[in-house]
Amino acid sequence: MLRLQGEMIRGGTSKCWIFDHHDVVATGVDLDTLLLAAFNAADPRQIDGVGGASSTTSKAAVVRTSSEPGVDIEYVFAQVGIGDERVEWASNCGNCATAVALYAVHHGLVPITSGSTTVRMINTNTGARLTGTIPTPGLAAPDQGTASVPGTSALGVPVLLGFQEPAGSTTGRALPTGRAIDTLTGPQGPVEASLVDAGAPAALFDAKAFGLDAATPLADFGAAVPALTVLRRRAALAMGLVGEDDPVGHAVPKVGIVGSPAPYRTTHGTLVGQDEYDLAVRMVSMHAPHPAIGLTSAVALATAAAIPGTLAHRFTQQTADGTLRLGTPAGVITTRTVPTPDGASPTVLLHRAARRIARAELLVPVLEGRPR
Amino acid sequence: MLRLQGEMIRGGTSKCWIFDHHDVVATGVDLDTLLLAAFNAADPRQIDGVGGASSTTSKAAVVRTSSEPGVDIEYVFAQVGIGDERVEWASNCGNCATAVALYAVHHGLVPITSGSTTVRMINTNTGARLTGTIPTPGLAAPDQGTASVPGTSALGVPVLLGFQEPAGSTTGRALPTGRAIDTLTGPQGPVEASLVDAGAPAALFDAKAFGLDAATPLADFGAAVPALTVLRRRAALAMGLVGEDDPVGHAVPKVGIVGSPAPYRTTHGTLVGQDEYDLAVRMVSMHAPHPAIGLTSAVALATAAAIPGTLAHRFTQQTADGTLRLGTPAGVITTRTVPTPDGASPTVLLHRAARRIARAELLVPVLEGRPR
Repeated sequence: MLRLQGEMIRGGTSKCWIFDHHDVVATGVDLDTLLLAAFNAADPRQIDGVGGASSTTSKAAVVRTSSEPGVDIEYVFAQVGIGDERVEWASNCGNCATAVALYAVHHGLVPITSGSTTVRMINTNTGARLTGTIPTPGLAAPDQGTASVPGTSALGVPVLLGFQEPAGSTTGRALPTGRAIDTLTGPQGPVEASLVDAGAPAALFDAKAFGLDAATPLADFGAAVPALTVLRRRAALAMGLVGEDDPVGHAVPKVGIVGSPAPYRTTHGTLVGQDEYDLAVRMVSMHAPHPAIGLTSAVALATAAAIPGTLAHRFTQQTADGTLRLGTPAGVITTRTVPTPDGASPTVLLHRAARRIARAELLVPVLEGRPR
Repeated sequence: MLRLQGEMIRGGTSKCWIFDHHDVVATGVDLDTLLLAAFNAADPRQIDGVGGASSTTSKAAVVRTSSEPGVDIEYVFAQVGIGDERVEWASNCGNCATAVALYAVHHGLVPITSGSTTVRMINTNTGARLTGTIPTPGLAAPDQGTASVPGTSALGVPVLLGFQEPAGSTTGRALPTGRAIDTLTGPQGPVEASLVDAGAPAALFDAKAFGLDAATPLADFGAAVPALTVLRRRAALAMGLVGEDDPVGHAVPKVGIVGSPAPYRTTHGTLVGQDEYDLAVRMVSMHAPHPAIGLTSAVALATAAAIPGTLAHRFTQQTADGTLRLGTPAGVITTRTVPTPDGASPTVLLHRAARRIARAELLVPVLEGRPR
C-alpha cells in the first residue's frame, strides 16, 4: 500500500487535498493514477477514498516552489471524477488557491518576514497568476481566524486572493470573439451572450432569455440548466476552446445567467435587499446549479462588468472604486478590480477564508505491478 | 486549534473515523462537542470538517482496551449529524465494527500471536458483543486484501464479523412484544409486522402490504418510506423503545420490507437470479432507502428468519447450515447463524472487508473559552 502525505484544507466553500510535488514524484506513480486511487474516483460515493463525493469536495492540488522570478510557488489543480475514473485538468479553482496559499505559508514554501505574507502563485493548468495574502502575526503561520465567506458559517484564516491581470489567460483575449455581445442558438432559438475569458472562460446570458429573474431561487434556476448546457457547447465553439468534433469538458467554459439586483433570500434563508448588491448571478457547476459561485467565475463577472457593452455591464451599477458585489444563491461576494499600470487588464481581489482540517498520511491502493 | 489523532477507515460500505479513547480524554473536551466540531456537523455539506456529508460517511468510533475478562476492546459508535448539531448514540454500526477491529489490530490493542487474530469487542452503545477476525500472516497487521462486499468494488482486508448472541441486546428479548407477528396501524390501516431485537431493534413488514415486491428497485421502494416512517413510530412504542410523548431517534428502530426471492437488478446493474438468494429485503436508513443494508439490520433479519412465525421466516427457504442469503439493492449479503451452547440466541457471522484510507491529525475548531 503506497503512502502519501497530504493535507485536507478548506478553501472558502471547497474542501481540497493539497500535496507536495516532491512527495508525489517520490511515489513513482503518475498523478492521475494516484489521485483516482486516493479519492476512489471510480465509486459515485468515493467510499474507499478521501474524496467527498461532491464537486466541491473532490478536489486536489499539487504544490512546488517556482524557479520563475517574482513567483513563489506553482500549483496544478485537479478536479477528481466522482463515479468517473478521470481527472479534469482544464481549469483553475480559486477556492483551492486560497488553500494552497495557506499550505505554502505553513510548509515554509514562502518566507514569513512580516505580519502579513503574500504568496505569489502560478496555476499551471491555466497559466493564471494569483496572490494569496495571509496575516502572519508573530512571524507564525496561522491555523485559525475569524474570516468567513458566503455559503458556510465556518470561520477561518483570512486570505486576500488576487487574480493578477486575469483577462485572456486561456484564449489570450478578455473577449475571445472580439465582441461584447454574441448571438448563440439555444434550444429555444437565438439568445444574446457575453463570452469572456478572465479567471476562466465564461458564457453569460440574460436571465430573462430563460424567463427568469437572475435573483431566482436555485430550484427554479435548475429548469434552465438543460438549455444552458446546449448553449455552453455553442459558447465553447465560439470561443475556440474546442473544435467542432471535440467534446466539451465539464469544468470550462463556465456558464450562467445575470440580471439586475432584486430582493431575494439566500439558500440559508437570509434576506438580501436590492441595494445590498450590484449584479445578480446564478452559475452552473458540473451540470447543476452552483450553490454560490466559483471564484474564477466571479473574476470573469468582475472583468465583464467593467467592459462596456457586455450583459454584465448592462445590468451593473458601476462604482467608483472598482467594487462589485455579486448576489449569489449563498449570499453576496464582493470583488474589487484594481487597474494595472498598462491598463489592459485589471487585477481582481476577493476576501476569502481557509482552514486546515487535517494533516494526513494517505494509504493509496494503487494496483500491484504498477511502477512505484 | 485543538489537535486529535484519528484514522479514516472504510468498513464495508461505510467510512468511519476511529479515535483512541486516551487521545479524546487528553483534549479535555466532551466527545459530542469534539465530534460536532471535527465533522462540521452544523453544515449540511460538512465543508469545514472531516465528515463526508452522507449517513454512511458521517460516522465515528472511539476505542479503548477493556478490563472485562474475555473482551479485548470496547468502542462507542457515533452517528454524527449532517446539518444538525447532534450526535446520535442510540445504535451500533456493524460496518464501523469491522473498521474498529482493523484499527485494534494495527494499534496493538490486541496481541497478534498467530496467522489469524480475533478482536473481541463490546459496543458500549448497545452492550452488543462482537468479534472481528482478521488474517495476520507473518504476525503483521495487514493494510491490503482482496475481500469485497456488495455496494462497492473496492478491495480490502477480509474481516469475519461475528455478532455474539445478539438477540435482545436492547430490550432483553428477541421478540420484544413476545409475539412473532404484531399488527400495527399505518396510514392505510392495520398491517402485519415482525418486531425483533437482534443487532438492533427492527420492524419488518410484508412488502405486499405496500403494494410492492421486496425485490423492487430502490426508486419504487422510496414511495413506501413515508408510510414506513409512520409505522416506525408505532413499532418503537410497541417495542418499548420510547414512551408516548418521546420522539423516536433516527437510528433505531430499523425498518424495512421483506418478501420471497424474485429476479432483480442491483443498483449497479447486475442481475440477481431468484435462486441466488433466500430472502428479499429493502431497508430504510435515516428516512431514505438504504443503498444496501445495515449490518445490524442483517443480524435482525438472520435472527428473525430463524424464528418460526415471523414474516422473515415465512418468506425464507430454510437452509441446513444456518446460511441466509439476503437480496439487497446492492447485491447479496450472506449471513450465517451458529447455534450457541445454551441454544437461546445464535451467533451471526458475516464476511466483510475493511481498509485504512488515511492516518491523520485533525485540527478541530473547538470554540475558544471551552475547556481543553
